[in-house]
Amino acid sequence: MRLLMLNPNTSQPVTDLIAAAARAAAAPGTEILPLTAPRGVPYIATRAEAVIGGAVALEMLASAHATADAAVIAAFGDPALGGARELFPIPVVGLAEAGMLTACMLGARFAIVTFAQALEPWYRECVEWHGLERRCAGVRALGGAFRDIGAVGEEKEALLVELAGRAVEQDRADVVVLAGAPLAGLASRVAERIPVPVVDCVAAAVKQAEALVALRPRKAARGTYRRPDAKDSTGLDPALADWIAHRPPR
Amino acid sequence: MRLLMLNPNTSQPVTDLIAAAARAAAAPGTEILPLTAPRGVPYIATRAEAVIGGAVALEMLASAHATADAAVIAAFGDPALGGARELFPIPVVGLAEAGMLTACMLGARFAIVTFAQALEPWYRECVEWHGLERRCAGVRALGGAFRDIGAVGEEKEALLVELAGRAVEQDRADVVVLAGAPLAGLASRVAERIPVPVVDCVAAAVKQAEALVALRPRKAARGTYRRPDAKDSTGLDPALADWIAHRPPR
Amino acid sequence: MRLLMLNPNTSQPVTDLIAAAARAAAAPGTEILPLTAPRGVPYIATRAEAVIGGAVALEMLASAHATADAAVIAAFGDPALGGARELFPIPVVGLAEAGMLTACMLGARFAIVTFAQALEPWYRECVEWHGLERRCAGVRALGGAFRDIGAVGEEKEALLVELAGRAVEQDRADVVVLAGAPLAGLASRVAERIPVPVVDCVAAAVKQAEALVALRPRKAARGTYRRPDAKDSTGLDPALADWIAHRPPR
Amino acid sequence: MRLLMLNPNTSQPVTDLIAAAARAAAAPGTEILPLTAPRGVPYIATRAEAVIGGAVALEMLASAHATADAAVIAAFGDPALGGARELFPIPVVGLAEAGMLTACMLGARFAIVTFAQALEPWYRECVEWHGLERRCAGVRALGGAFRDIGAVGEEKEALLVELAGRAVEQDRADVVVLAGAPLAGLASRVAERIPVPVVDCVAAAVKQAEALVALRPRKAARGTYRRPDAKDSTGLDPALADWIAHRPPR
Amino acid sequence: MRLLMLNPNTSQPVTDLIAAAARAAAAPGTEILPLTAPRGVPYIATRAEAVIGGAVALEMLASAHATADAAVIAAFGDPALGGARELFPIPVVGLAEAGMLTACMLGARFAIVTFAQALEPWYRECVEWHGLERRCAGVRALGGAFRDIGAVGEEKEALLVELAGRAVEQDRADVVVLAGAPLAGLASRVAERIPVPVVDCVAAAVKQAEALVALRPRKAARGTYRRPDAKDSTGLDPALADWIAHRPPR
Amino acid sequence: MRLLMLNPNTSQPVTDLIAAAARAAAAPGTEILPLTAPRGVPYIATRAEAVIGGAVALEMLASAHATADAAVIAAFGDPALGGARELFPIPVVGLAEAGMLTACMLGARFAIVTFAQALEPWYRECVEWHGLERRCAGVRALGGAFRDIGAVGEEKEALLVELAGRAVEQDRADVVVLAGAPLAGLASRVAERIPVPVVDCVAAAVKQAEALVALRPRKAARGTYRRPDAKDSTGLDPALADWIAHRPPR
Repeated sequence: MRLLMLNPNTSQPVTDLIAAAARAAAAPGTEILPLTAPRGVPYIATRAEAVIGGAVALEMLASAHATADAAVIAAFGDPALGGARELFPIPVVGLAEAGMLTACMLGARFAIVTFAQALEPWYRECVEWHGLERRCAGVRALGGAFRDIGAVGEEKEALLVELAGRAVEQDRADVVVLAGAPLAGLASRVAERIPVPVVDCVAAAVKQAEALVALRPRKAARGTYRRPDAKDSTGLDPALADWIAHRPPR
Repeated sequence: MRLLMLNPNTSQPVTDLIAAAARAAAAPGTEILPLTAPRGVPYIATRAEAVIGGAVALEMLASAHATADAAVIAAFGDPALGGARELFPIPVVGLAEAGMLTACMLGARFAIVTFAQALEPWYRECVEWHGLERRCAGVRALGGAFRDIGAVGEEKEALLVELAGRAVEQDRADVVVLAGAPLAGLASRVAERIPVPVVDCVAAAVKQAEALVALRPRKAARGTYRRPDAKDSTGLDPALADWIAHRPPR
Repeated sequence: MRLLMLNPNTSQPVTDLIAAAARAAAAPGTEILPLTAPRGVPYIATRAEAVIGGAVALEMLASAHATADAAVIAAFGDPALGGARELFPIPVVGLAEAGMLTACMLGARFAIVTFAQALEPWYRECVEWHGLERRCAGVRALGGAFRDIGAVGEEKEALLVELAGRAVEQDRADVVVLAGAPLAGLASRVAERIPVPVVDCVAAAVKQAEALVALRPRKAARGTYRRPDAKDSTGLDPALADWIAHRPPR
Repeated sequence: MRLLMLNPNTSQPVTDLIAAAARAAAAPGTEILPLTAPRGVPYIATRAEAVIGGAVALEMLASAHATADAAVIAAFGDPALGGARELFPIPVVGLAEAGMLTACMLGARFAIVTFAQALEPWYRECVEWHGLERRCAGVRALGGAFRDIGAVGEEKEALLVELAGRAVEQDRADVVVLAGAPLAGLASRVAERIPVPVVDCVAAAVKQAEALVALRPRKAARGTYRRPDAKDSTGLDPALADWIAHRPPR
Repeated sequence: MRLLMLNPNTSQPVTDLIAAAARAAAAPGTEILPLTAPRGVPYIATRAEAVIGGAVALEMLASAHATADAAVIAAFGDPALGGARELFPIPVVGLAEAGMLTACMLGARFAIVTFAQALEPWYRECVEWHGLERRCAGVRALGGAFRDIGAVGEEKEALLVELAGRAVEQDRADVVVLAGAPLAGLASRVAERIPVPVVDCVAAAVKQAEALVALRPRKAARGTYRRPDAKDSTGLDPALADWIAHRPPR
Repeated sequence: MRLLMLNPNTSQPVTDLIAAAARAAAAPGTEILPLTAPRGVPYIATRAEAVIGGAVALEMLASAHATADAAVIAAFGDPALGGARELFPIPVVGLAEAGMLTACMLGARFAIVTFAQALEPWYRECVEWHGLERRCAGVRALGGAFRDIGAVGEEKEALLVELAGRAVEQDRADVVVLAGAPLAGLASRVAERIPVPVVDCVAAAVKQAEALVALRPRKAARGTYRRPDAKDSTGLDPALADWIAHRPPR
């Protein structure tokens, strides 16, 4: 199977981290197709950027979905996940969604541990959108600045391990979800230093996308995720406009 | 005060309805400044369109907010409301938010009544985002197609009155919120035919924006609605990119 | 419009604070009509006193509602708000309700900050009655005694600012609601020392009452806020008894 | 033990029903002391009447609590229960509270079945105040008028049995709570015609009051149910004013 | 009446504590019939042990229920309570259930205070199963080991009093539920040292069982607690197998 | 990898259905190891049977877990899932858990559709235990009897398709989860006749177990799913007793 790993951020180094972690987790027959956002911000951190990045993610999917069996929106917070699931016929999985649902099979409550406090409000809204508040022990974020979004996992490794430990002891988390695409690959390096299971969201998303493809679910023809009726638009990205209008790709 | 009425849809007739209903509700000193989305869809009806329209709303606000004292995002569903509230220093009110919060002062539970079933999932997610599930008696939508988005309130008037009546009798609603910018102005025409208070969202949004301006709240310097730090971006609308980068407008 | 500001407490100095803050917030055409409870306690602080004060508020409204376009029950905790809304044909707004709903438009979660710990249980029950738990970051109250209920805002100003700061930093509040009628007018004095928007409940209630009057909602003829059928009673305040019996005022 | 059965309604026939059902349920050593409200309405049915009746219940308790080991506020809806529990040193049980908590030991979810639709909103708020929404399968009320509040249980017996049956089949209730003091004694007459356990609230309240007295809990000295500090008041019922002021009874 | 006090643990000293506390609380006509689990663990502390102990409790009830008027499953956590209530015609009460529901009549929120941290997860799931999260201020458990499960209440008395005090001050509990059968009888010894009402679960369970027997509820013939249809089984305890098969006892 | 498919029911034909569906879904390297309960009931349908079957599942795992890389408790309702996850070092997945979490990636709300009404209460409690109420549109079960638990999927195929359709239209489900081990394999036969994605729980559980094994989570050393301390027991299944006592297998 061919699996799109869509980075809705513009930072190529983060895409590289995602691709490496995805390939390390992929089953033999899974081909990882990484994509970097052609426009947007280097990394999404706020509600506003999530909207902007979500619109970009839809544009990327409009162009690329026909070449793949499934897609992962590879930003924790799952920008435009609902819209993507409505529009496109292939399974689309969110990074946060995959990490959290996988964590649910490893304990009663998971902690979300991340590298920057600016991310907290968006992550909390993401937990609520998925209806998983009762399973979430809390969101914990490091204070302070970081040097390089493509190497923040290495820079902050020791602090993140310590923060995860506090989430376990103080928030009573049974599982730790390391959140944010820039932390892809970190879980395997720190697993032994955290006393509960640790979930790498990129790895989890690859396995969940593989699972969905294997189960071959039909595209909804009814319910809230059926494809919307054709609609005209003005000034949108051409591939997205065509798809929304039910026009064949150019 | 100067109040932006941002229509994140591209349909000028809907903007005209919004402007007329807003002017009818405005206090003497309130100047209504209507704006129509320069790109997007004629009317937002799905999760995907809400993301697209939300990004457009942020672009419109980036260009226009400096000219106004407050803004209303005039689509029920409140696309990008959280992002707008983060980014900009003026009060920003959502159409759904204003309608629902106003309804809360008129009864225990409100029903949302609208003209097309495609809108239901997005509206339900909007209620949840605002944390108002316990106050919402339900979302009721007409089935069937409509001829003209700019005249749907007239075309469906009798059916909407009947639907509102069912919301009162069967869902035990104490208040009816007529939802969707295309229904702006309808409430005053049908109020006598619905046995509970009816809220016109555009009118409610104008009054709420006036209230906020009168209360002169400071822009948050802390908490989840403080302005995000400056960030570079690629390929975004210039005014929005400048604002996100904390650059002076060109 | 004529707006009753009902103080269900017997303390005239608190009524004076309410009246001053209300007049400062009122629109040009709004006439503020303050009323002090003829019987009851100097300030309501407990569940028992809320019931007693609620009954008094209904008596005050029975006598005065015909002279006004709207009323505010000017005690945070909103004693008898539901009952008042059932009985009387004019819009009735609660002080807590107005403060909290207004705060909802300024951030995701509000903190309630007040001057005496005795008030906490009643305030928490008020939040639950309004179904706003998900929007409330917490209730914070000063310990210790105060000298004069009519000057507690001045006496405790610095401590309240400090407490509001803790609500922002520790409870992650986006907005602060200064709670309790004796704090009327305080918000404007301290706004610059609190890093998030601060809501003055009296000012908010005036604006919300003005908004409701402008929207001219009909009195419910169905639903749970329709006027109850006529009923006889024994030994009640004559004006209230007459209104409950659907008898003309004497 | 001596058990006050406080009817916060003014209807003596309802008090007689309560007293008879209470005596039928009482243990050998329990003396039932019925009291009828000296002022108020014949039967509480609305939010407004609950506030009025709650204030009267506090007055009745102020005068009578010293003569008894425990008290039942014998109106479903539990007017002023929280206030009574704060103020007085003896256990106070609510009719709804006792019925619902007892029902929780007989099934997963209980239905509340009553004789008049006007009661529904107040009963629903009562369920929420007790935090028992998840255990409540619904509130079902008969439509139509009744002839005599003191005989409504006999008049509507067949209709109530039928309504209880619908609550079991359609709302999936495991238990039926017959709600409203005027239905005291009905459960034993209809138990065989309803296919799930039926709770008589008066009987349940007597047993719960006996249980509390046997357990001899101390009066809270901390927490939200400690006795409030002494406070002066104006124009209140003398016995209640004295108790609130921590003055010895006259 | 004859009341089974089923200890689903194998520790006879705990049964003796239960029996003594039960007899101290029982009404004159109540005969206490203690039973110790013939197989299982000395005291249930985990989710796995709760399942094992629950199956044993059903076996004990299958053999003994016909000799009694009601039964108490005397382990906090209420193993197999739902199953027991389905299967058997007599009232069955859980220790946690009785303690928590009784506590609900003494305050707004109760704290569960116990002697070993291993118990916390099971106790929390028990609170959720009963739908009482909103009434529970928290679960607090002592750290450290204990010497003797039959004397842990004496050994840890001072620490438990201190822990209860913290639950009151920090978690804002109005009532303390001393949890775990090994703490039977402790409440009366420590009540004066804890500033809020303290509930002894064994005593509460006896009073609740007496209350249910006095109310004589019918066995459900419909709803989710009707007796399941007859079913064959393999390899189960003979008395339980017979009862499940609707066969007469041997 | 070696994957235990534990049928906690005694019906071999159901085990055969489970094994066939599991093998159809398994990845090339996954060996399916089916096991049938040596004691218990032919199919678990009630709360009581879930406790009994849960205890049997723990016994089966105690004997077999060392031979496998992961295990599935293959009864919808997930008997003893929490206990199994505590006790054993390999990943353990529940049939309901896998079906529901997989469904969460295919829509906003799933319906659980099953073949017998007796299963409903247990299934609803299972949804609540997993904290997934907000994602569950409802549980729908066929009325009437069935002939053969090993062939109920064939016998009721048309009725289940119709019931699934009603769940989509009336409960607004986006996804259908076919629930109950006896329905293993049905989803692929009926997918085209149901207008939304359909989840086969056995297939989903295999894919989720494969995902967990690939992610190689560590066994918790802290939190509520750490292995309990060693404990003696009396009269339990020897393999389970040894494991609980931390004794080497015999």
